[in-house]
Amino acid sequence: MATDQPQKLLKAQTLKGFRDYMPELMAPRQAMIRLIEATFERHGFQPLQTPALEYLETLAGKYGEEGDKLLYRFQDHGERHVALRYDLTVPLARVVAEHRNEIQLPFRRYQVAPVWRADKPQRGRFREFFQCDADIVGVNSAMADAETLITGLSVLQALGIEGAVLHLNHRDILFGTLERAGVSEKAQQIACIRAIDKLDKVPAEVVQAEIEREAGVDAATATKLIGHFTRDLDGQELLSELKLLGGVVGAAVDRVVEVRKLVEAAGFVGRIKYDPTIARGLDYYTGIIYETRLTDPRVKGIGAVMSGGRYDGLIGLFTKEAIPAVGISLGLDRLLAAMQELDLVQKDAHAVQVYVTVASEALQANAIELAHLLRLGGMRVELDLAGGKLGKQLERANKRGVSLAAIVMQEDVDIGKVRIRQLATGKQQRVALQRIVKVARSALRLQSHA
Amino acid sequence: MATDQPQKLLKAQTLKGFRDYMPELMAPRQAMIRLIEATFERHGFQPLQTPALEYLETLAGKYGEEGDKLLYRFQDHGERHVALRYDLTVPLARVVAEHRNEIQLPFRRYQVAPVWRADKPQRGRFREFFQCDADIVGVNSAMADAETLITGLSVLQALGIEGAVLHLNHRDILFGTLERAGVSEKAQQIACIRAIDKLDKVPAEVVQAEIEREAGVDAATATKLIGHFTRDLDGQELLSELKLLGGVVGAAVDRVVEVRKLVEAAGFVGRIKYDPTIARGLDYYTGIIYETRLTDPRVKGIGAVMSGGRYDGLIGLFTKEAIPAVGISLGLDRLLAAMQELDLVQKDAHAVQVYVTVASEALQANAIELAHLLRLGGMRVELDLAGGKLGKQLERANKRGVSLAAIVMQEDVDIGKVRIRQLATGKQQRVALQRIVKVARSALRLQSHA
Repeated sequence: MATDQPQKLLKAQTLKGFRDYMPELMAPRQAMIRLIEATFERHGFQPLQTPALEYLETLAGKYGEEGDKLLYRFQDHGERHVALRYDLTVPLARVVAEHRNEIQLPFRRYQVAPVWRADKPQRGRFREFFQCDADIVGVNSAMADAETLITGLSVLQALGIEGAVLHLNHRDILFGTLERAGVSEKAQQIACIRAIDKLDKVPAEVVQAEIEREAGVDAATATKLIGHFTRDLDGQELLSELKLLGGVVGAAVDRVVEVRKLVEAAGFVGRIKYDPTIARGLDYYTGIIYETRLTDPRVKGIGAVMSGGRYDGLIGLFTKEAIPAVGISLGLDRLLAAMQELDLVQKDAHAVQVYVTVASEALQANAIELAHLLRLGGMRVELDLAGGKLGKQLERANKRGVSLAAIVMQEDVDIGKVRIRQLATGKQQRVALQRIVKVARSALRLQSHA
Repeated sequence: MATDQPQKLLKAQTLKGFRDYMPELMAPRQAMIRLIEATFERHGFQPLQTPALEYLETLAGKYGEEGDKLLYRFQDHGERHVALRYDLTVPLARVVAEHRNEIQLPFRRYQVAPVWRADKPQRGRFREFFQCDADIVGVNSAMADAETLITGLSVLQALGIEGAVLHLNHRDILFGTLERAGVSEKAQQIACIRAIDKLDKVPAEVVQAEIEREAGVDAATATKLIGHFTRDLDGQELLSELKLLGGVVGAAVDRVVEVRKLVEAAGFVGRIKYDPTIARGLDYYTGIIYETRLTDPRVKGIGAVMSGGRYDGLIGLFTKEAIPAVGISLGLDRLLAAMQELDLVQKDAHAVQVYVTVASEALQANAIELAHLLRLGGMRVELDLAGGKLGKQLERANKRGVSLAAIVMQEDVDIGKVRIRQLATGKQQRVALQRIVKVARSALRLQSHA
């Protein structure tokens, strides 16, 4: 860096569509991630981590045409075609096939990591965002389906979010319904599903137009489909009606009913319901699919905070062995937005607890020693580095929102003591150095430290 | 996904130079990250997160010519020139300049995140690796320097790594030494420093050749320099000799001595020493620089596990305000490799604790209910999904290394009980459902749950 040549200033700017998480936002976000990971682990999921970059071939063609366009792709230094991951599901499928010999099925893994999509940036929508996924690989059963849903609902519960409702559907019901309406080609069906998926976001006319345009379905059929998917019928009535169709649709209805029963067995009664309009935009789903909506009016606009489904064919793109899988994906930033709105954010989860001030430069080594002692005692401690008069330093501590200050002064040091000050009340006491951890922890109302 | 058309299998492969962290490796790695983050927080650092992608202009030219070549760069969908971050320091400088109004100085932030370098892959060297950085922005003082070093040494201590020694130097001592040898142009000096940085990795002749070639220094001067940097002198003797030079070199010697004193005040006596050969390859350092080496013979080959220094000019590339900064960077994977070698890895930090088995399909809802109870009780629980006879299920639990099984059988369910089995001994007992959490926790020797 040519520091002795004057240089034009670089513009300090975050890349368009991206953002920094400053500590005020990152601290509660990190507390959330910890809670999510701990909940995943309590449900038997183990951490896995895959690279940000994959061979383009691994990702391309898995997310539909629209998804393909949103892939960040380029050639690396060895002229390999590569892309940044678009979700955590396709890399998991690649991992299962690649490491098949090391993996014992059923395999439960979770991953909390960023994904990248070159989407049009909007309020609250960024090109880099974090997904929290938990998947069960190797079993196709209602129990496996239910376990992932229970895990997701437990995460929401652990975060303190109440009134989340899981809207459940099954791809075979969708396919069966389309079939019955006369849409029988797979590509047409997928195009219809992708359009129907938008029913909760855009007007029915727009969806109908997309069905006609993208799936090549005639207007009469499209009208019939829209009619079917916007019928105002109770989920239970619909299921009974669908059950009569028998075959794969009947079996899918049984699965939906069984999954609901098992999820309710974990105490989530009334938190899961059949919803015929859930379609999911991604191509790879083959069984249950779902989205989770928040019912609290303060956060109704926030969209699905958790979604996913069963994808029994995806791993089969990489290996001849048929390996079924099911999973959930939580949107970290939507969840954080909801929690902010609902005032559930733990603001001080990572905040500094004790601020160490230094009366004079000669006491710096003493202050460092004291800070070290408090830190070994398990507290989060900031040592004043900006200096100046004690009053100034205490003011700084106050501004940082720290509640306790430890003051290092010569007259106390001489007799092996240190001063502790409650910043809110100004109350202070002198404490022997060997008692400082105990006194500070009790002032902070922390449990005793092992 | 055209599941009804037969398709050629895709090759399941990790991108060259990248790797997956399977659960066996990821679980202890995650435990390490938690410990590192907690230690950073105890030292007053707050979490920050920056995007993986930055404008190319932000990163280019900050890492020297060699670094520039290793940047993953491409054009995004808006034809912006972008690059994956190469380290966490330059993005931090960009953040400080961009968010200057929101930031209160001194600003302590930490970040644990992957960086990408298109380096030649070698054993243990990958193109994606994690850095754990803690930096103090806004103060140039021995206290700030010492605080970062103490933080780093405390991390190593928290991880259980003993015998780490911090090798400390100062860029002004290097510049002064070069100046005295007649190398006075900045670009030449930087080239020399980059060559000298390799003295611990390649033979002295190779370094000398690089000095002559890259810095354009004559052979006699290069010989003199190599002689100086390979002198077998005690650090203290060298410092006394350098101190006599006065000026910036003298001041740098004072800083090194002061920093060492303060680090020792935190109890790290003998864990920090002056080392004239520490040079650091990166261009942006302006003050203290250091690398940390492990002395245990089992891990001597592992290289520097922590390094960094002061970079008072870097933020100034983005803003007119002069903002000094100092930081440490821990190499997560080198640390993990060292911990594996030293047998310090916590293998069961995230392992499943209770395996719930189900005697018959009719009992699935009961099993789910039980699993949910145990999970709410804070335990990591896996519910058997593969089914089959109880013996088979218990065998599976054993294979997973779980120590405790909870067995759901009709005869127990009928009287509100459940069976708990110690898998190592085969000892089992019937427990009332309302006592199960307490009994299981005590069998696992967990503390009582709030």
